[in-house]
Amino acid sequence: MIKKLSAEFVGTFWLVLGGCGSAVLAANFGGDGNPLGIGFVGVALAFGLTVLTGAYALGHISGGHFNPAVSFGLWAGGRFPVRDLLPYVVAQTLGATAAAFILFQIASGAPGFAIDGGSAGAFATNGYGGLSPGGYSMAAAFLCEVVLTAFFLVVIMGATHARAPVGFAPIAIGLALTLIHLISIPVTNTSVNPARSTGVAVLVGGAQVSQLWMFWLAPILGGLLGGSFYKWLGHDRPDIVGNG
Amino acid sequence: MIKKLSAEFVGTFWLVLGGCGSAVLAANFGGDGNPLGIGFVGVALAFGLTVLTGAYALGHISGGHFNPAVSFGLWAGGRFPVRDLLPYVVAQTLGATAAAFILFQIASGAPGFAIDGGSAGAFATNGYGGLSPGGYSMAAAFLCEVVLTAFFLVVIMGATHARAPVGFAPIAIGLALTLIHLISIPVTNTSVNPARSTGVAVLVGGAQVSQLWMFWLAPILGGLLGGSFYKWLGHDRPDIVGNG
Amino acid sequence: MIKKLSAEFVGTFWLVLGGCGSAVLAANFGGDGNPLGIGFVGVALAFGLTVLTGAYALGHISGGHFNPAVSFGLWAGGRFPVRDLLPYVVAQTLGATAAAFILFQIASGAPGFAIDGGSAGAFATNGYGGLSPGGYSMAAAFLCEVVLTAFFLVVIMGATHARAPVGFAPIAIGLALTLIHLISIPVTNTSVNPARSTGVAVLVGGAQVSQLWMFWLAPILGGLLGGSFYKWLGHDRPDIVGNG
Amino acid sequence: MIKKLSAEFVGTFWLVLGGCGSAVLAANFGGDGNPLGIGFVGVALAFGLTVLTGAYALGHISGGHFNPAVSFGLWAGGRFPVRDLLPYVVAQTLGATAAAFILFQIASGAPGFAIDGGSAGAFATNGYGGLSPGGYSMAAAFLCEVVLTAFFLVVIMGATHARAPVGFAPIAIGLALTLIHLISIPVTNTSVNPARSTGVAVLVGGAQVSQLWMFWLAPILGGLLGGSFYKWLGHDRPDIVGNG
Repeated sequence: MIKKLSAEFVGTFWLVLGGCGSAVLAANFGGDGNPLGIGFVGVALAFGLTVLTGAYALGHISGGHFNPAVSFGLWAGGRFPVRDLLPYVVAQTLGATAAAFILFQIASGAPGFAIDGGSAGAFATNGYGGLSPGGYSMAAAFLCEVVLTAFFLVVIMGATHARAPVGFAPIAIGLALTLIHLISIPVTNTSVNPARSTGVAVLVGGAQVSQLWMFWLAPILGGLLGGSFYKWLGHDRPDIVGNG
Repeated sequence: MIKKLSAEFVGTFWLVLGGCGSAVLAANFGGDGNPLGIGFVGVALAFGLTVLTGAYALGHISGGHFNPAVSFGLWAGGRFPVRDLLPYVVAQTLGATAAAFILFQIASGAPGFAIDGGSAGAFATNGYGGLSPGGYSMAAAFLCEVVLTAFFLVVIMGATHARAPVGFAPIAIGLALTLIHLISIPVTNTSVNPARSTGVAVLVGGAQVSQLWMFWLAPILGGLLGGSFYKWLGHDRPDIVGNG
Repeated sequence: MIKKLSAEFVGTFWLVLGGCGSAVLAANFGGDGNPLGIGFVGVALAFGLTVLTGAYALGHISGGHFNPAVSFGLWAGGRFPVRDLLPYVVAQTLGATAAAFILFQIASGAPGFAIDGGSAGAFATNGYGGLSPGGYSMAAAFLCEVVLTAFFLVVIMGATHARAPVGFAPIAIGLALTLIHLISIPVTNTSVNPARSTGVAVLVGGAQVSQLWMFWLAPILGGLLGGSFYKWLGHDRPDIVGNG
Repeated sequence: MIKKLSAEFVGTFWLVLGGCGSAVLAANFGGDGNPLGIGFVGVALAFGLTVLTGAYALGHISGGHFNPAVSFGLWAGGRFPVRDLLPYVVAQTLGATAAAFILFQIASGAPGFAIDGGSAGAFATNGYGGLSPGGYSMAAAFLCEVVLTAFFLVVIMGATHARAPVGFAPIAIGLALTLIHLISIPVTNTSVNPARSTGVAVLVGGAQVSQLWMFWLAPILGGLLGGSFYKWLGHDRPDIVGNG
């Protein structure tokens, strides 16, 4: 179990370091109007690649969740034992927080760096209303996070199903996360992952922390919906433990 | 059959939510000249990834068509029974329309959102002439949709052929859709999929709906051509039912 | 043989329609400074995806060369019979030319379209000196095309080697073509493929045709070098006929 | 052994030609503000694709390290014999230097080309402080290179582990390098590879060479940490020699 939790810690660290790191360090390089920066496309790609690479490297150890909403969703889908839920979620949240701390050490080495607490998207935090990159309302943000996390679980459950092609699940799952970011960075800066939201929010503090409730509630709710739905949809074969 | 149709509904929902969603929410973030937005590259990637991820997750249930032109083309290619055509097309069109409705709920949560009926590319609709992003004529738009859908079917038929490497078809097919968007977003905003066109057009109404005929006719014609051609080209082995 | 040549015709048609098509229609959408256009990244991706998708769809029929320099290189590498060289090259060149013609029909449906003969990169043509997008000299252009085509053949020979993982060759080869375009669009608009160069040059005529000699000579020379080199490097196992 | 060393020479040549080549020739095409250039996203993709394609083509010959930090890390992880370390590192460094020389021949064929010694990111060199693209401090740059190289080794060790899906390692490893560049080009122009840093620095000379010590020390330190950590994490199965 210590290896499983270590793998979840390391994988979620990688997700936050890579996804949030690319957003903080490279998305807007050189300021507005400079096309050298990687923009939302680059950030979307980075988030997805953390999961694609982490799942190939660590998936055979822990299942490669790296996300409390995924662990909850796989439990709802009958693929993950309830007794492992809490330890997994703790390991994921600690990994995300450690990554945010290391990212801060790197980012603060640039001249003029400021963490910009209270402004939308600051230090790659998630938010709604005034903290949404595009100013989206709380209701729109909530709906968006629920629906996208539900589909994320459908892809995870389906791509690791016994009838799906073997070995491709990390590609499908990682690129699903890229797709989710391509859609929703403007809405909430994209969470679908409570650990990722928490890791960077605790470093920024203040207003960002006060919105964290949504980025636990909506992704977990979406995960439960997606996992339950696929359990019905794909039940024609015995379920297997997700290995992706 | 209810599971197959559910999978087609869900997969086409995902295609419209992801593809049209990224176009509506993120393509032009911050207005013209802001390089943070995902642009046509991001939208092309998003459309392709909906199919790549949906085919890995749902392909083993329904075949993963998510597109009436694909169902027609696979029928022409001898890979899909005629009795399933109508139910598949209905499920796809309903899924696309439901996704457009949810997307509208999210998008309308932004300050200043307007659906912009009658302007080119509004709410990710397809169009020609005055409704083409680059102002392309009806003839050019028609030719473009026919040719690209025909090639889409060649890739689908070929990558799911018994002699093609096993398991890779969703990658080939999804990235073919990305490629098709890289080419033709300026021409018609890229359809090659009547359900996708219909889902967003009915929400916008007016001028967009009046052009829908082309985005049923041209993709289905192209699908029939591509499916028939590959049936000839690849007939040296017994055909299999597409599983990609 | 008619099916092999048809597959080469169709695959090279796809390469030019997708690669050159994305360049002509979408690279610079909305004019300079508009970040919606797909830029060189999108064009590089498009070229690579034509080969990735074409090789999965058609590779099991013809080997999926789609490029005279590849056919020559595989011959030098001991993987392709000399008697098939000329028919393959003819089919490829005809396919490329037919695609350029169809692309012209589509592109000319936009208001204000002009083929811009004699200007660098016009209609996705290749060139050096005054016809190089970045104004690169003939010597730099020649060196660039030779070296990149040689590496292209190393990747093709290696990824289809009996000891390489089975089924992944189209991914490696397609993305190698993407990589080659990421490097060298500014130098020659990237050829590494005499058929692709010829197809668009004959439509533009004039100055572009007068430089075609280099885009036959340099890629074929590079192909021969790369194929011969890998024949030495990888000879520890019996060679197989490339199927990628 | 001569074939192994040739493969490492060629693979590292490809890495520098493709990664640094795309940066030098195409990243900033047309000057600041021109969205046609490939930007940091394109450069990140190019670096990753050199490894993805090189590993499929050459991995079955030499293991496909192309990077002294990878060779050191695999040694620390128990996957690579100490007696091969020095020859591999020498072959890699020579390959990188040869590629930088050829790249210079191509790049200097453009009107107005200057190698810009002493300015940040000149000729794709790595640097910290005044030579960091974003002006990052030496401490931030050091931390960044150590952490990212450590994760790179975790991905390499994990994706080539006996329990990981067979054949996918080059995708995971190549795209991990893309991810690393998406994060850290602004910090150090991204090394994680002493050979790559050395190849271009020796061509530029001066200030860039004086900072080379860090781009040997930090990546090798990170590689040793990552390799050692994964040796502990994944030890539940007998180790295999990396083939990715």
